[in-house]
Amino acid sequence: MDLNSDVGESFSNWTFGDDAAIFKSVSSANVACGFHAGDPHHIRKTCDAAAAAGIAVGAHPGYRDLAGFGRRFIDMDPRELTDEVVYQISALQGLARAAGTEVRYVKPHGALYNTIVHHAAQAEAVARAVHAVDPNLPILVLPGSEIQRVAEGIGLRPVIEAFADRAYNPDGTLVSRREPGSVLHDLDAIVEHVLRILDGKVRAIDGTIVPIRAESICVHGDTPGAVAMAARIREAITEAGVEIRSFA
Amino acid sequence: MDLNSDVGESFSNWTFGDDAAIFKSVSSANVACGFHAGDPHHIRKTCDAAAAAGIAVGAHPGYRDLAGFGRRFIDMDPRELTDEVVYQISALQGLARAAGTEVRYVKPHGALYNTIVHHAAQAEAVARAVHAVDPNLPILVLPGSEIQRVAEGIGLRPVIEAFADRAYNPDGTLVSRREPGSVLHDLDAIVEHVLRILDGKVRAIDGTIVPIRAESICVHGDTPGAVAMAARIREAITEAGVEIRSFA
Amino acid sequence: MDLNSDVGESFSNWTFGDDAAIFKSVSSANVACGFHAGDPHHIRKTCDAAAAAGIAVGAHPGYRDLAGFGRRFIDMDPRELTDEVVYQISALQGLARAAGTEVRYVKPHGALYNTIVHHAAQAEAVARAVHAVDPNLPILVLPGSEIQRVAEGIGLRPVIEAFADRAYNPDGTLVSRREPGSVLHDLDAIVEHVLRILDGKVRAIDGTIVPIRAESICVHGDTPGAVAMAARIREAITEAGVEIRSFA
Amino acid sequence: MDLNSDVGESFSNWTFGDDAAIFKSVSSANVACGFHAGDPHHIRKTCDAAAAAGIAVGAHPGYRDLAGFGRRFIDMDPRELTDEVVYQISALQGLARAAGTEVRYVKPHGALYNTIVHHAAQAEAVARAVHAVDPNLPILVLPGSEIQRVAEGIGLRPVIEAFADRAYNPDGTLVSRREPGSVLHDLDAIVEHVLRILDGKVRAIDGTIVPIRAESICVHGDTPGAVAMAARIREAITEAGVEIRSFA
Repeated sequence: MDLNSDVGESFSNWTFGDDAAIFKSVSSANVACGFHAGDPHHIRKTCDAAAAAGIAVGAHPGYRDLAGFGRRFIDMDPRELTDEVVYQISALQGLARAAGTEVRYVKPHGALYNTIVHHAAQAEAVARAVHAVDPNLPILVLPGSEIQRVAEGIGLRPVIEAFADRAYNPDGTLVSRREPGSVLHDLDAIVEHVLRILDGKVRAIDGTIVPIRAESICVHGDTPGAVAMAARIREAITEAGVEIRSFA
Repeated sequence: MDLNSDVGESFSNWTFGDDAAIFKSVSSANVACGFHAGDPHHIRKTCDAAAAAGIAVGAHPGYRDLAGFGRRFIDMDPRELTDEVVYQISALQGLARAAGTEVRYVKPHGALYNTIVHHAAQAEAVARAVHAVDPNLPILVLPGSEIQRVAEGIGLRPVIEAFADRAYNPDGTLVSRREPGSVLHDLDAIVEHVLRILDGKVRAIDGTIVPIRAESICVHGDTPGAVAMAARIREAITEAGVEIRSFA
Repeated sequence: MDLNSDVGESFSNWTFGDDAAIFKSVSSANVACGFHAGDPHHIRKTCDAAAAAGIAVGAHPGYRDLAGFGRRFIDMDPRELTDEVVYQISALQGLARAAGTEVRYVKPHGALYNTIVHHAAQAEAVARAVHAVDPNLPILVLPGSEIQRVAEGIGLRPVIEAFADRAYNPDGTLVSRREPGSVLHDLDAIVEHVLRILDGKVRAIDGTIVPIRAESICVHGDTPGAVAMAARIREAITEAGVEIRSFA
Repeated sequence: MDLNSDVGESFSNWTFGDDAAIFKSVSSANVACGFHAGDPHHIRKTCDAAAAAGIAVGAHPGYRDLAGFGRRFIDMDPRELTDEVVYQISALQGLARAAGTEVRYVKPHGALYNTIVHHAAQAEAVARAVHAVDPNLPILVLPGSEIQRVAEGIGLRPVIEAFADRAYNPDGTLVSRREPGSVLHDLDAIVEHVLRILDGKVRAIDGTIVPIRAESICVHGDTPGAVAMAARIREAITEAGVEIRSFA
């Protein structure tokens, strides 16, 4: 099983998250590409650290919206979106290579990630961008999403991920953050949830058991207690006899 | 002889220059990389057009200063500058490949170009960036500049360029734009100047003849009459029996 | 009758439109505030020119989206939007005063203008911003829009505007730009349309006559032929015996 | 005596410093204006908090350089700099008024602050901007600086400030941060230094006593231990029988 987390989101004089601590737990690093967060120098240092720790570097492109941290939907022209995603992945490739590593996968960020779950035109724009850069780059997706569908259609490899601290609906989608109980906070409940994912299923918010075939589990790095949670999840997976390593 | 010009400097809803017209005259296109000008969509379209016209694409990285069009010196940390230049060249590489072509050389833009003529730390930062991306990428330089020196020292190939419409000092440097007579406007004088460059020399502003071994001549695309001037220069070089083609 | 047009949208080294020419025809200048277009120096020069020409300066705030020229919907938090609009209007106030004039009204730009026709939360956010800066500042609105409703509710003065070159639906709304015939190009048809607006009505795209009580007519400054169209409209209104002057 | 500190420098999803804690110690808040740090929403919340705490709001304009946090010299055209500073102060005025308070002084930020100590053209550009916004706005300055000189010449009120944790040269200038011992770290030494400032003098790094007539003391809010240091300084000044209040 792979553990992925967002990193490299410091910018200018602003620090974000504790990447060094998160790197002790995860196997895949979703590295910001400069459009929603990250600047070339912080990105480079993040790639250096990921390379040193043997963690797979993934591109984490987002909307061009530093002022909104890429968390706001932008109604973009899909052709422009394709070019913006090509630009971001390629820029990261250069910095990753300078750090002695490679970009091994793509995971869109924030509002872009959420949008391409359902927005066909933007999903296709993202899939085309990844394909243009390298058709062998896997892309992390929610199961059942538009981006999974178009990625498969274009010949990309979608990699299904599950979320360590999010509640699920009976249809396998995530409970909206606006709903009560959408985010799990209790460490024991999270560990139980993660172990069930290893077993190929999640228990939905109504109690039903839903199958999921995740190859990666997303842990957050920016919330209070994130580092401790990631460490605990790593420990639980390892104790279950499952190796934590990149899918790429 | 190569003719190079700055292109791809449109941004958002703002058009800059007439790239399509300039492409009829030049053999090398210095394509903006998004930090001083250019956005991914305009850059991509510029690469498409350069590929269709058989023109060599070069990276034209600048300071991160859209509000100043990269024309203002910024007293940057050299390590940050290296990463910013890696980022820009790599981003362009991705868009160039998506357009079916490649980045074949680097020419820094504006204030960065002028700074690395004399600023050793920034010159070294730029040379390191080019080397990190691809040690085989040539870099366009002014003869006698710091960047020429450090590029050679690091094992890069500096390519000397001359300017079609700029007056020279007796020591082979450009006359500062603040001086009277620094920019040539008369088309006949420019053609005479260009033909002399083909012959390996320039006549300095004081009349002395200075040797120069330029492999490329820069023509501007953003001034009134730029397109006509570029066409005239192309015609004069061709009539002199010299082929216009990329050095790369 | 007032004629308004968007100006001050040059940025950095990029020129946009021909403000000096448009100033010969209009009575109100919607001056960009730096978030979708405009930078402080271009804004200041625009205010200087408007002051010299006796044209009313209006604030033209937009989404913080230079890369999209404020033409893309952004799903912003309304409280953040309020503060962004306060910031923009106030910044313009300072530059207008330095130019010896005042901000006399507000007209939101592009996607923000279109959004607050129907998006209640963003409309309220904009109205609150204008009210916070100065409850006496009028705001230009489409008749029947959410922004008209909330502006009235909060005690602002909404000023209804009509568009010189846009086709109308039978319900008084604008025909979407995606529909054929949404933009009028024929100068005679535009003049006829404008004269009808003076008369308190528009002929909708299906031929029905719809009443409209516009106090201002918007003319575009950025399309080919815009300057000639504005001059022609001014001439037609003047010849109809109607004085062109600011509503403010 | 006044105590001033930089605040409002959070941006987007990035938090900077602990403004709420610093507000317990200082009497003047240098609020970022959005060009080097701060966004309208964070600025507004900072003004709200300053108003609630009875702290004087000052404008803290900087170079337009989010990526460098305003800490890098930019070789700007002075006329553009004037307009950028007018824009920033005015924008803050609007947000301060919306928060029920006013901008009471100006203190330039970072590299701009350092540049106008010696750069006559940029110093004059800043002074003109402050004067254009409001000739009654005081400006915080280093004694003996260009900005003090031109501010006086133009009819502004320069207010001299001292730095709580910086070492001084015998001529009253600050020891460069590149020199050893330039920043004081020992709390007792800082308190001793501050008490000497109250007494109208500083002990220079060579032991000589230099007179200084500071009306304000700058305390940093962004360094480790900044909050504790500010509290200790406040306590020491108060215990010395000197009231801490704004100069404005």
